[in-house]
Amino acid sequence: MNTGFVLKGNICHTPAPDDLEVLERGVVVCENGVCRGAFDAVPERYAHLEVIDCGDRLILPGLADLHTHAPQYAFCGTGMDYELMDWLLQIAFPEETRYADAAYAEKAYGIFAQKLKEGATTRAVIFGTMHADATLTLMDLMERSGLVSLVGKVNMDRNAPPELTEPGAEQAAADTRRFIEACRKRGYQRTGPIVTPRFVPSCTDALMEKLGAIRREYDLPVQSHLSENPDEVAFVREIAPEAAFYGDAYDRFGLFGRDSRTVMAHCVYSTPEEVQRMLDNGVWVAHCPSSNMNIASGIAPVRRYMEKGLRMGLGTDVSGGSSLSMFRAVTDCIQVSKMYWRYVDRDARPLTFPEALYLATKGGGSFFGSAGSFEDGFAFDAVVLDDSAEPRARALTVAERLERAFYRELDRNGITMKFVRGERII
Amino acid sequence: MNTGFVLKGNICHTPAPDDLEVLERGVVVCENGVCRGAFDAVPERYAHLEVIDCGDRLILPGLADLHTHAPQYAFCGTGMDYELMDWLLQIAFPEETRYADAAYAEKAYGIFAQKLKEGATTRAVIFGTMHADATLTLMDLMERSGLVSLVGKVNMDRNAPPELTEPGAEQAAADTRRFIEACRKRGYQRTGPIVTPRFVPSCTDALMEKLGAIRREYDLPVQSHLSENPDEVAFVREIAPEAAFYGDAYDRFGLFGRDSRTVMAHCVYSTPEEVQRMLDNGVWVAHCPSSNMNIASGIAPVRRYMEKGLRMGLGTDVSGGSSLSMFRAVTDCIQVSKMYWRYVDRDARPLTFPEALYLATKGGGSFFGSAGSFEDGFAFDAVVLDDSAEPRARALTVAERLERAFYRELDRNGITMKFVRGERII
Repeated sequence: MNTGFVLKGNICHTPAPDDLEVLERGVVVCENGVCRGAFDAVPERYAHLEVIDCGDRLILPGLADLHTHAPQYAFCGTGMDYELMDWLLQIAFPEETRYADAAYAEKAYGIFAQKLKEGATTRAVIFGTMHADATLTLMDLMERSGLVSLVGKVNMDRNAPPELTEPGAEQAAADTRRFIEACRKRGYQRTGPIVTPRFVPSCTDALMEKLGAIRREYDLPVQSHLSENPDEVAFVREIAPEAAFYGDAYDRFGLFGRDSRTVMAHCVYSTPEEVQRMLDNGVWVAHCPSSNMNIASGIAPVRRYMEKGLRMGLGTDVSGGSSLSMFRAVTDCIQVSKMYWRYVDRDARPLTFPEALYLATKGGGSFFGSAGSFEDGFAFDAVVLDDSAEPRARALTVAERLERAFYRELDRNGITMKFVRGERII
Repeated sequence: MNTGFVLKGNICHTPAPDDLEVLERGVVVCENGVCRGAFDAVPERYAHLEVIDCGDRLILPGLADLHTHAPQYAFCGTGMDYELMDWLLQIAFPEETRYADAAYAEKAYGIFAQKLKEGATTRAVIFGTMHADATLTLMDLMERSGLVSLVGKVNMDRNAPPELTEPGAEQAAADTRRFIEACRKRGYQRTGPIVTPRFVPSCTDALMEKLGAIRREYDLPVQSHLSENPDEVAFVREIAPEAAFYGDAYDRFGLFGRDSRTVMAHCVYSTPEEVQRMLDNGVWVAHCPSSNMNIASGIAPVRRYMEKGLRMGLGTDVSGGSSLSMFRAVTDCIQVSKMYWRYVDRDARPLTFPEALYLATKGGGSFFGSAGSFEDGFAFDAVVLDDSAEPRARALTVAERLERAFYRELDRNGITMKFVRGERII
């Protein structure tokens, strides 16, 4: 392993939401996979390290995708004329049944892992399907990609087509344990399992209870969906009447923060009580603006969540979201916040570019510990971006080039190097 | 000139908003620049024509960008943290002053024309700046690009920085006449002038009156902005109290349809009276969803406009819009229509992909006569798209591939051929 080096170029990161720090021709230092800070020039104590000069390129922290569905990438950008519940039945579930087929899973997940690797994402929290074997295949591929990821074998034992319904909580729990044990045996360095009840409509209380026990036993993180769509929220109220609110239906089973690291996707319609519980329990929000537009869910009150101090990052939510690009997630996040300000809450200021970048880097990165910033002690995840193929009529500042790179999605073909925990993977 | 040929491939077009016609391995016939229709196989009467076999590629009509600002492309994707009036003063106007410099105009417009040519756009309605010479340079470049375009020397004689304020209506009119005469002398085949009062806040009545006279005299089309932002609409009410509504401030001077082909960008806040006048006068709407999000203007009621039968197309509105891609405009249009449905008017159904595609092709194409469809008698504008670089885990239908191509913006690097009026330009 590379024990240390210096990356030199135009350093851009957001140590705080309102603080876009730009160091023109600055440096970031990596030692043993850990960032030792961003500086105007190489500090004396690191003078012995090799310098990788990236010239005029932009260097930014790796981005964290807090919510995405690997099996759905196969239809990404299609089937967008539906709303959530119809979309699940017509588009998403039929695709997910295909992952009973090992060969299909290998092929489809291979494409997903490759695409994720090619982009600016360095860390991801990922849904598989209910199929343990296919999900292990996905994890093997993610491990090989060099990205850091948490991957869930999905649990669902009701309200789905028979082929996607686990045969009872007992069997589901046994499969999940087998999946977790298999993960351990494979000795992944950067890939781990995450407990994944699909969402309340898909999981009986019996299953939830077993998942809560598994979570405690193996001390695992949790991911699920929360308060995404009005119809879904109404349905949850109906099928989980004993829950005080949607999130409480997870919390009752120990699947909503507290001593478990938990991320909930969407939170478009979270009530004040739900938000308070998320704050109390330290639950992360995965804000997924593209998906929330595409399946017409709505817009999460991200400014309000920021003001309250909720833990939060961005998710692409492929394939309710139509792009794996976290650059796109950043600009989508800004755009929907403007529509939220315009139509829902005139006191909720639109997000600025630095704020959205913060969510995509340090905000989401915090789910993995210290990641997503070039501060001392953070994991050294970095993306080097060459924007020179985009012609310029005149000089732009580094900050302008950075914003432009996001709006024009230069993560598509502009990434020339990518580091995860100090290891170069592109 | 190529007098006739047949393009063979997967033909996709929208003769009507609710009719996405897909002909797998079908053909479209071109004779003397005019489309003779789309067919399953080459009709006997065209059997003598050369067949260009595009294999498994997608063939769609060229897209019409009904509203974009060429000088603003230089900062496209930057300066997005502003609202309209501030954005004009802080970002747009300072850039536009640069076009007094011929060398800068040549360089910046060269980039713009090249980028527009590389995309899926075949026709465009374009704002220049107030500078006649720079705008002629832009027109020379557009003519050379092979695209069909209407380009306006912008008129503005108030409420702008001194360097962007024409010195009185008299001088502005003289400059505009000189610009139009120069266009005529240059003998463009596919590029024409369009009368372009920037918007009501920028134009005195004296200037508007002269522009109305010029329009009549030269029988020219008209473009401007309309009811984009609440602050702007309020300002217009204040400075044009004699107008019954915003659009009436154009109509009073003969710059709002009737016997002039007129396109108005945005129409987010058009009142029922304004909409009725647009219907009566046959004014086109250029719906610009990206821009309307970026500068936080709002969402135009596109479903309502379609129901009423308003003439309408899409615009990228670079650089309030952050992309020159008309593929992106299509998916943005769908996404904002979903937010409009969710938050503003639950009876305004979201647009479907075929409907948005229709707006981008035949809808906007109608501003140029018969363009944007493969029906008999339409101008032969076509784009051939290779989506094979996007891996597929399984077979997708042609319709799915088309939708995917738009959501993933494959117009960026997937266009392998492009025809305008039957001439191949890529």
